[in-house]
Amino acid sequence: MAKIAITDGMAEDAVLMLRKEGHEVDLLTSTSNLTGYDAVVIRSATKITSNVISSSPSLKIIGRAGVGVDNIDLEAATNANILVCNTPSSSTQSVVELTLGHLLSSVRHIPTADRDLREGQWTKSNLKGTELCGKRIGFIGFGRIAQGVGKVAKSLGMELHAYDPYLPEGIAKHEKCNLHENIEDLFKSCTHISVHCNLSDETHHLVNLTTLSMMPGIGADGIECGNHLVSCARGGVVNEEDVLIALNQGILSSCALDVFENEPETTHPLLNHPRFHGSPHIGASTREAQKRIGFEMANILIDYFNGITPKSVVNKGVLV
Amino acid sequence: MAKIAITDGMAEDAVLMLRKEGHEVDLLTSTSNLTGYDAVVIRSATKITSNVISSSPSLKIIGRAGVGVDNIDLEAATNANILVCNTPSSSTQSVVELTLGHLLSSVRHIPTADRDLREGQWTKSNLKGTELCGKRIGFIGFGRIAQGVGKVAKSLGMELHAYDPYLPEGIAKHEKCNLHENIEDLFKSCTHISVHCNLSDETHHLVNLTTLSMMPGIGADGIECGNHLVSCARGGVVNEEDVLIALNQGILSSCALDVFENEPETTHPLLNHPRFHGSPHIGASTREAQKRIGFEMANILIDYFNGITPKSVVNKGVLV
Repeated sequence: MAKIAITDGMAEDAVLMLRKEGHEVDLLTSTSNLTGYDAVVIRSATKITSNVISSSPSLKIIGRAGVGVDNIDLEAATNANILVCNTPSSSTQSVVELTLGHLLSSVRHIPTADRDLREGQWTKSNLKGTELCGKRIGFIGFGRIAQGVGKVAKSLGMELHAYDPYLPEGIAKHEKCNLHENIEDLFKSCTHISVHCNLSDETHHLVNLTTLSMMPGIGADGIECGNHLVSCARGGVVNEEDVLIALNQGILSSCALDVFENEPETTHPLLNHPRFHGSPHIGASTREAQKRIGFEMANILIDYFNGITPKSVVNKGVLV
Repeated sequence: MAKIAITDGMAEDAVLMLRKEGHEVDLLTSTSNLTGYDAVVIRSATKITSNVISSSPSLKIIGRAGVGVDNIDLEAATNANILVCNTPSSSTQSVVELTLGHLLSSVRHIPTADRDLREGQWTKSNLKGTELCGKRIGFIGFGRIAQGVGKVAKSLGMELHAYDPYLPEGIAKHEKCNLHENIEDLFKSCTHISVHCNLSDETHHLVNLTTLSMMPGIGADGIECGNHLVSCARGGVVNEEDVLIALNQGILSSCALDVFENEPETTHPLLNHPRFHGSPHIGASTREAQKRIGFEMANILIDYFNGITPKSVVNKGVLV
């Protein structure tokens, strides 16, 4: 039976499932002492650096309860023959719904409206918005989540556009999404941009003043809707300094971010901009997603310690 | 040529259209002096009382740029042989999108998240939400707007339910919506209720502590999602005192209102409840809706003064 450390919490039922299988499960608050642990389960808050890996010689598997693995030093894990697994599909619907909620909140000024009402101000005449219907939404990355947002955006009457150099052939056509050859074409075509890619050297600050300045400001339906940006993907893809400039210069009409380059983010001047609104990385923070993630991760660990290679291995070179 | 008074504003292009036809159009700030005017165009802010009607003997037509006519004394207008026309379909998509924006904002705590970030607080652990997918949405009234919300809700994976004693046969089946025989059954079946009916004696305070207390709190998918209420229809259908009690007692998990019994509402204690958020009657406040409403109303008036009966007459007994 294995010793499993959990550093960012896990659904209670999933912890019980692991214990029922005979595993020893400890809920820790840091990675400072992983001595003797066979597995560690993290979410986005814990960072698994090469130091953590070199000081945890018993570690065999790192479970990322969630999607993005940019908080794990993958090279160091692979070199130490440690398997890294994530739960890529469990949070899809939750992120889809948050993205749509943020986008609708932006174009209809919902957080501003509520803030004004709480201050006793009936600011109806300041709050003219625009419809999503008739506009083009441009997805940076067209994976599971973007496709889910796209399905709902289509039902709202939006036209789908995407840039994704890694997309398997046929998917864009099947989803009736216009695929662009380069990122510039995407920005030139769309008044609404939604970020759905991983953070990598290639995607770092892909959304910047140059790309934002290419957006048309006038919808495909001829309405002066301005330009709108939303990201519930990963901080660092959006250059936050540039977004602030773009908002102040009227290049962007709104921006909604669930993710930030430095998290927890509590001091960036963007947070107090009247046409910005944000949330603290809650894309997967739903009862449903946490339940699914917990069970998926418990099953990965149970499989692994029964000698079965889990399905969602991130660093495929590692021998199980 | 006719004299037309506009009291709550109108899209500029629509005003130009009327003037181009030779009509005299005045933008007024009240109904205190409608002497000599053949027509008055209002939105929701202006009230056309029997007093206004009796002191405006030249008035032949009241144009309601929007849908609800509860701000017009219809009986007095009919008795004075004044035609009342509205623009029922121009704002549908805008209200559909605001309703969905409010609902997603509620279940994912978007206004709270943004408020916390503005105060420098990263409150991720307080903000666990729930998905709409897998839940039942119950519509009070299943007209154009509810059907539009339903279409998108279906694409999000929700199950549609409705109570509407006036719905023409076949529509609910066509939209794959479960029609309930009485309002109690609707509340008993649904964790998410969206109001889409007119205000009348029959619908006044239809949403109250008794009906809210019937909601199940557990989604059709078995998730403890709580109960959620949204209304972008008309103030007065929802009993706001009862909503406050229901929020405080945990009967309701969230409530989002765009409409209030007394507008402008700036002092009700509900406005400052942590699990409430609101907007100041902005359902039709989009560039698209205002443009469509303006043109629809201008065409109604042009038709009328050319001797053509407009399509959207509210008080059909009046002779044109």
